[in-house]
Amino acid sequence: MPPHDDVDWRTDPAVLDAHRFDRSGWTPDVRPAVVASVRGVAGVQHVLRFAHQTAIPVVARGAGTGLAGAATAADGGIVLDLTGLNRIVEVTAPDELAIVEPGVLTADLDREAHRHGLRYAPDPASVEISTIGGNIATNAGGLRCAKYGVTRDAVLGLDVVLADGRLIHTGRRAIKGVAGYDLTSLFVGSEGTLGVIVGAALRLRPIPAATATICAHLPGAASAFAAVGAVRAAGVVPAIAEFIDAATLTRIDEHLGTDLRARGAAFLLMQTDGAAAEAEADQAARELRRYATDLEVTTDPVEGARLTAVRRAALPALERVGRVLIEDISVPRSRLPAAVEAVRAAATATGTSIHTFAHAADGNLHPIIVLSEGQEPSDPAVQEAADSIFRAALDLGGTVSGEHGVGVLKRRWMRAELGEDVGALQRQIKGVFDPKGILNPGKAI
Amino acid sequence: MPPHDDVDWRTDPAVLDAHRFDRSGWTPDVRPAVVASVRGVAGVQHVLRFAHQTAIPVVARGAGTGLAGAATAADGGIVLDLTGLNRIVEVTAPDELAIVEPGVLTADLDREAHRHGLRYAPDPASVEISTIGGNIATNAGGLRCAKYGVTRDAVLGLDVVLADGRLIHTGRRAIKGVAGYDLTSLFVGSEGTLGVIVGAALRLRPIPAATATICAHLPGAASAFAAVGAVRAAGVVPAIAEFIDAATLTRIDEHLGTDLRARGAAFLLMQTDGAAAEAEADQAARELRRYATDLEVTTDPVEGARLTAVRRAALPALERVGRVLIEDISVPRSRLPAAVEAVRAAATATGTSIHTFAHAADGNLHPIIVLSEGQEPSDPAVQEAADSIFRAALDLGGTVSGEHGVGVLKRRWMRAELGEDVGALQRQIKGVFDPKGILNPGKAI
Ligand SMILES: Cc1cc2nc3c(=O)[nH]c(=O)nc-3n(C[C@H](O)[C@H](O)[C@H](O)COP(=O)(O)OP(=O)(O)OC[C@H]3O[C@@H](n4cnc5c(N)ncnc54)[C@H](O)[C@@H]3O)c2cc1C
Ligand SMILES: Cc1cc2nc3c(=O)[nH]c(=O)nc-3n(C[C@H](O)[C@H](O)[C@H](O)COP(=O)(O)OP(=O)(O)OC[C@H]3O[C@@H](n4cnc5c(N)ncnc54)[C@H](O)[C@@H]3O)c2cc1C
Repeated sequence: MPPHDDVDWRTDPAVLDAHRFDRSGWTPDVRPAVVASVRGVAGVQHVLRFAHQTAIPVVARGAGTGLAGAATAADGGIVLDLTGLNRIVEVTAPDELAIVEPGVLTADLDREAHRHGLRYAPDPASVEISTIGGNIATNAGGLRCAKYGVTRDAVLGLDVVLADGRLIHTGRRAIKGVAGYDLTSLFVGSEGTLGVIVGAALRLRPIPAATATICAHLPGAASAFAAVGAVRAAGVVPAIAEFIDAATLTRIDEHLGTDLRARGAAFLLMQTDGAAAEAEADQAARELRRYATDLEVTTDPVEGARLTAVRRAALPALERVGRVLIEDISVPRSRLPAAVEAVRAAATATGTSIHTFAHAADGNLHPIIVLSEGQEPSDPAVQEAADSIFRAALDLGGTVSGEHGVGVLKRRWMRAELGEDVGALQRQIKGVFDPKGILNPGKAI
Repeated sequence: MPPHDDVDWRTDPAVLDAHRFDRSGWTPDVRPAVVASVRGVAGVQHVLRFAHQTAIPVVARGAGTGLAGAATAADGGIVLDLTGLNRIVEVTAPDELAIVEPGVLTADLDREAHRHGLRYAPDPASVEISTIGGNIATNAGGLRCAKYGVTRDAVLGLDVVLADGRLIHTGRRAIKGVAGYDLTSLFVGSEGTLGVIVGAALRLRPIPAATATICAHLPGAASAFAAVGAVRAAGVVPAIAEFIDAATLTRIDEHLGTDLRARGAAFLLMQTDGAAAEAEADQAARELRRYATDLEVTTDPVEGARLTAVRRAALPALERVGRVLIEDISVPRSRLPAAVEAVRAAATATGTSIHTFAHAADGNLHPIIVLSEGQEPSDPAVQEAADSIFRAALDLGGTVSGEHGVGVLKRRWMRAELGEDVGALQRQIKGVFDPKGILNPGKAI
């Protein structure tokens, strides 16, 4: 491996092992040849030039928190570790703009933005542990998407190192622009298969003047989704609208010692924010009361944090019980009840244990399959359950991945979603950017 | 031309002539061979299959209101007239979703959405005369972008007929989704060079509970932009924030009989909307008063319409004076004063008459070159003025087209903006979708 000032080539077996898998629960049998930890853009270019010449596969890697197997290593390949590129280069408050390197942790950017009276809106539950580069490469979502959109909506421009080592710039520092095809959006969500993101111009937003939090207990999923619909129909755009089902509530109760399940078979967490936060929360509460068995509203930040902690506890509460497979389908909002019904039917038919929570305003559900003792993800019942969930998503006009990406785990279903012609176009686009196919081969498309 | 039930092949010279140019003020010397007016998707496929076999150029055309020469005819080519595909297929209120054909007029969709308690947010000043298909193909902006984003932000999925006549579907009816590369965004803004949009799944939004309008008179551009910055820094996100310069105010006064220029050398029109519209307007007004010589706030819709009429009169007022060339640069918001200064310097240096208004919250300026009697757009002084404006946009970290597109008129400058490597990638992407180069050749890229 050719030496370079900005590159540490690491072959220590423990390092190789640690860079082999992500957080999807799926670990490939193979091992990378080397981990290239880079300190500068020139280092990234150096690694890619070498890989391009030698046709060695390269897997760009942020924090490895992905849930689709997208950052898992390629056999004998290079893992390009970008966590060393972690400078927040600039925050320009009047432009509500940040320029960052890809290895910056999402929460670190948000904290720096706060120092300038701004915030970084996209907030995947992994904010404290995932990188901006990974967020961009997966088009990560989060709770606040309901009002502020996904990662793509925060990306103005990118610096990208192409497969052959050339550095290009897409987009701009300005908010609007239509010169040329939208390559920025093409790189967003491309899971390291089109280029390596080495810099980003990101849009920040004002910190809302106030935030109000509502939690509601409801008799079931159908009434919960009807209630969310009623809130939107009343013209209120909540910043957050999270649904939790009965099975998950039981697990949270066990974990936190609460009595959520007893208070209703479904739970909604909502936030409104901005100058009208309180008025909007009151309006939302009026709608919710028509469906809810019990309801709390607060503008107190400490109380708000206590209520949101319930939602944040959902995944940890399930992980205590067993290994989890986190699914991530998205459907038109009106089809949420049908989707939850389909998930329930899949669990019953296959005898698997599935718990569901959802970003309700976006129609994005996370059915979580909790494996029983000794059960493997490859278990036929588990596979059948997952397949039923994906089929339901497509039948309902939705998608097999709302925010976690395709990686290796969802490729078969993605092909079903996109169809032959679109699949062929995707592969040809890949060929334009990466003619030798060295960038994250076998992933995403 | 092979007959088809869904296609009228029209060769009447008056029809050919009417489909030769757009609203850019630039008319090509050439004439199309035929206008194909289609009634259905099958008709579009038929036309493209024929064009693909015979390698005849095809220019997709909505209403022809574009300002960049993008819809101008190709010599001996086919103009594919999509205005007959004008059905609003579906509005599903609970999903805040509309399915439309491309020839629907933007305002017609908005009116239909209103019947369901919703609205279509993107509002180019041409809403009443431009088509959704043209809006998507140019990624049109508008006044409300300041809060609601551009056309891209409203597009969930597309039906597209490819150059060879195949029909594909991109995106989805669901709000979120990350399966595969983002082809939807690639088609948005592609100005008819990658495929013909024959259907769109569009995101609607709740009608805001209230709207407040502010107009402020200020001593000059610098204080006006500082005032806009102060409003944003106060955490208020206006739905609209329009700037008008002194030269334009004088023309509006002549047109409407008002005394705007006398009340200040710059004019700001702002709107806030939503449940907190009034509170936010009061907050914005507090900030604006630190800069303004005079200010009005109203929540009365009739008064609001009277105030916005000033902004809407800007272009007509200039068109009374002479032929106009409408430029469209965009810069980071903090560089707006420098951009206005550069425009002023360009006018002085070249002796041209330039008037500027701007979507101030987005950093998007429209310097309008008003030609003198007998002056042509090709006049060297005019060209030099335009070149100075484009150069300034790039020097300030901006773009040569904020929302109107590249068409034929901005291709040279777009190349300067994108650089060689990105330009080459764009051409290769074009090659993937349109290997024979029949779709709107010589435009956009
Ligand atoms: C507890 C937990 C909660 C989570 N919550 C959410 C959530 O709410 N919403 C959500 O969307 N996701 C969530 N995730 C998934 C994951 O955090 C996101 O996908 C995140 O964006 C991945 O970032 P990363 O830095 O870990 O990327 P990695 O896992 O390292 O990589 C992910 C993909 O991006 C590519 N990549 C990484 N960096 C670059 C780069 N600089 N250039 C090009 N390609 C690159 C990789 O090749 C890979 O394909 C969660 C994960 C966990 C463990
Ligand atoms: C008075 C006035 C005000 C304006 N205000 C604004 C404004 O505020 N913001 C703004 O952004 N623009 C504005 N414009 C410009 C223009 O209205 C927009 O660019 C609009 O989106 C063009 O729509 P159209 O239907 O007229 O498209 P056309 O002019 O017919 O076509 C424009 C481009 O889109 C392509 N195209 C059209 N339909 C399709 C399709 N179905 N599939 C594929 N390609 C297609 C054409 O080939 C061409 O490249 C204004 C224009 C005028 C005259």
